Amino acid sequence: MLPFRLTVIGCGSALPTLRHNASAQVLDVHGRLYLIDCGEGTQRELRRQRIAMSRIGHVFISHLHGDHCFGLPGLLTTLSMLGGRGELHIHAFAKLEEMLAPMLAYHLSGSDLRPVFHAISTQGGEVVHEDSAVRVTTIRLRHRVPCVGFIFDEQPALPHIRRDMVDFLHIPHYHLNAIKQGEGWTDDEGRFYPHERLTTPAAPPRRYAYVSDTLPCPEHCETLGGADLLYHEATFCESEAARARETRHSTAAQAAEIARKAGAKRLLLGHYSARYNDENTLLAEARAVFPATETAQEGAVIDV
Amino acid sequence: MLPFRLTVIGCGSALPTLRHNASAQVLDVHGRLYLIDCGEGTQRELRRQRIAMSRIGHVFISHLHGDHCFGLPGLLTTLSMLGGRGELHIHAFAKLEEMLAPMLAYHLSGSDLRPVFHAISTQGGEVVHEDSAVRVTTIRLRHRVPCVGFIFDEQPALPHIRRDMVDFLHIPHYHLNAIKQGEGWTDDEGRFYPHERLTTPAAPPRRYAYVSDTLPCPEHCETLGGADLLYHEATFCESEAARARETRHSTAAQAAEIARKAGAKRLLLGHYSARYNDENTLLAEARAVFPATETAQEGAVIDV
Repeated sequence: MLPFRLTVIGCGSALPTLRHNASAQVLDVHGRLYLIDCGEGTQRELRRQRIAMSRIGHVFISHLHGDHCFGLPGLLTTLSMLGGRGELHIHAFAKLEEMLAPMLAYHLSGSDLRPVFHAISTQGGEVVHEDSAVRVTTIRLRHRVPCVGFIFDEQPALPHIRRDMVDFLHIPHYHLNAIKQGEGWTDDEGRFYPHERLTTPAAPPRRYAYVSDTLPCPEHCETLGGADLLYHEATFCESEAARARETRHSTAAQAAEIARKAGAKRLLLGHYSARYNDENTLLAEARAVFPATETAQEGAVIDV
Repeated sequence: MLPFRLTVIGCGSALPTLRHNASAQVLDVHGRLYLIDCGEGTQRELRRQRIAMSRIGHVFISHLHGDHCFGLPGLLTTLSMLGGRGELHIHAFAKLEEMLAPMLAYHLSGSDLRPVFHAISTQGGEVVHEDSAVRVTTIRLRHRVPCVGFIFDEQPALPHIRRDMVDFLHIPHYHLNAIKQGEGWTDDEGRFYPHERLTTPAAPPRRYAYVSDTLPCPEHCETLGGADLLYHEATFCESEAARARETRHSTAAQAAEIARKAGAKRLLLGHYSARYNDENTLLAEARAVFPATETAQEGAVIDV
C-alpha cells in the first residue's frame, strides 16, 4: 500500500523545553512530503530524523504564533544554501508573508528557491490544496488569534485488476487501464463482464486531521468524521481546565471527547504545556474518554 | 575576582548539524550577561545550560546571516511570554531592525518587553556600548556581507585597600573610598602616605575579542592586542583553504596566526563547517601555529 505516514517533528507548546520541540509534523502521502507547522528548530530536527527537507513541496501553517512558524526563515535559507531551486508552496494567512518578507528578501536574494505564498482564509472550510495524492481542507479553530486546522484526505485509489480474470478471459494489456478506470469487458463471444467482476476495490482513502491550538470545537466533529488519525492539541490536564479556557487551549480529555464524537479511529495528543515533566496524566485522562489514544513524541512515525 | 566568563551556546556554521548549534555565546562580566550572536535554537540551548535569558541586558549581532540572528524572534517572544519587561538592547546593523520589524510588531504587541535597536556602523572602530562592567568596541571584518567583531574590555577596577596599613595608621572608614579613588592620607603628625603605599593594584582589566565570520584580518592584530581570550572563526582546515577564501572564511591555521600576531593569551576556535565530524584536525593545525588553542563546544564555560 502506498505510504500515508505521519512523522512528529515537534510536539511542545509555546515555551521551549528540553523535552519537546516546537510544533512541526511531516506527512508523507505516496512519497510526497507535506510539512505541517514549522516552529523554531524544525530544520535541525528534520536532519536528526533524516528527512530530506528538499523533498518538502508544501508547507501548511495553522497560525502565526512563533512556536508554529519561527522555523521557516532557517528552513528556507538552508534549503537555498543546499542548492534548492524551484517553488516551495507555503499555505498560510496572508500576514505571514508580510511578516517574513523583509527577512526573505535579504536571505533569498539571488537564490533559485522561490517560496510561493498562498493566502488561506481565516474562516476555514476551504480546499487550500489538491494534487494527485491529497486534498487539504481547512477548519476554523478557536484560539486567541486566527487559527485553522487541516484535514488531509487521500485521493481515492483506482481498483485492483483481478489477475485471475484477466488471464482466464485473455484480456489484452492495452485494455487494462480502461478497466481500472471503470470499464468492463466483452469477450469474442459477446459475453459482457462488468467492471466489478474484473476488479477488487481499492482500500478506502485515508484521512488525517490536524487540529492545532484551539478550544474544543464540537461543531467540527461531523467534518472530521471518521478520521483514521486525529491529531488534537492537548496542552493541559483537567486540573488546568480553567487555564485552558483562558488561553483558548484544550485539555486532553476535551481532545478525547472530540475524537469520540467525531468517530476518529485513533487520537494523537500533542502541544504539551511546559509545566509537565511527562505525558502520563494527559494520556490517562484522554484514554478514560477515548481508549485509542497515543501521545506524540519527537521522531514517532505513525502509519495512518 | 568578579566573573568574566564566556559560555559557548553554539559554535556551528551556516548548515545545521546535530553536533553543533548555530552561533551564540554568553559573556558574563561582573554578573551582567551579554549575548553575542543569536542563531536559531539559542533560546533552547540557554535553557539547557540553565542561563536565565531574562538576565540578558544586551545583544550584539555580528552580521545578518541567519545562523547568527534567526534565534532572536523566538528569544524575544519567549522573554515576553515569561513576563519580561523593560528594555532589551540589541546592537546590530540597522538592517536587522528593518528585517524583524513586522515580526516583532505582531509578536510583541501588548508586551511589556521593549527591544531597543542600536544601529552600529558597518565600518567598525566604534565604541558601541559602555557600562560599569565593560566597554564594547567593533572591528570591521571581511566577510561576504558586512560583518563586525566585538572587543569586550573590562572596566579597570579600583585598587585594593591594604588592610594592614589602614589598621596601623588608624585611617577612619569614611576615608577609605577616597583612598580607593586615588587619594593618600596625612596622619595627625602631618606625615603623608601616598595612595600607592596604602593600596595594591587591582588585577589588570581583562579583554575578550569575538572575531566572527571573516577572512583573516591581520590589520586588526594591534587592536586585538593581548586579548586574554580571542575567539576566532575557523570554518575550514588547510586542505579547504581555497574554499575558505572563496566563501570569505578562515582556516584554523589562519585563526592561529592572527592569535600569534595579536599576542593573544588564548585562542578559542569555532564556526566549524558541517563537513567535519570532529574538530581534531582543526585543533592540530591551529596548535602547530599557536599552542594555547582550544576548540569551542556547546556548554563550554571559560574564565577569561
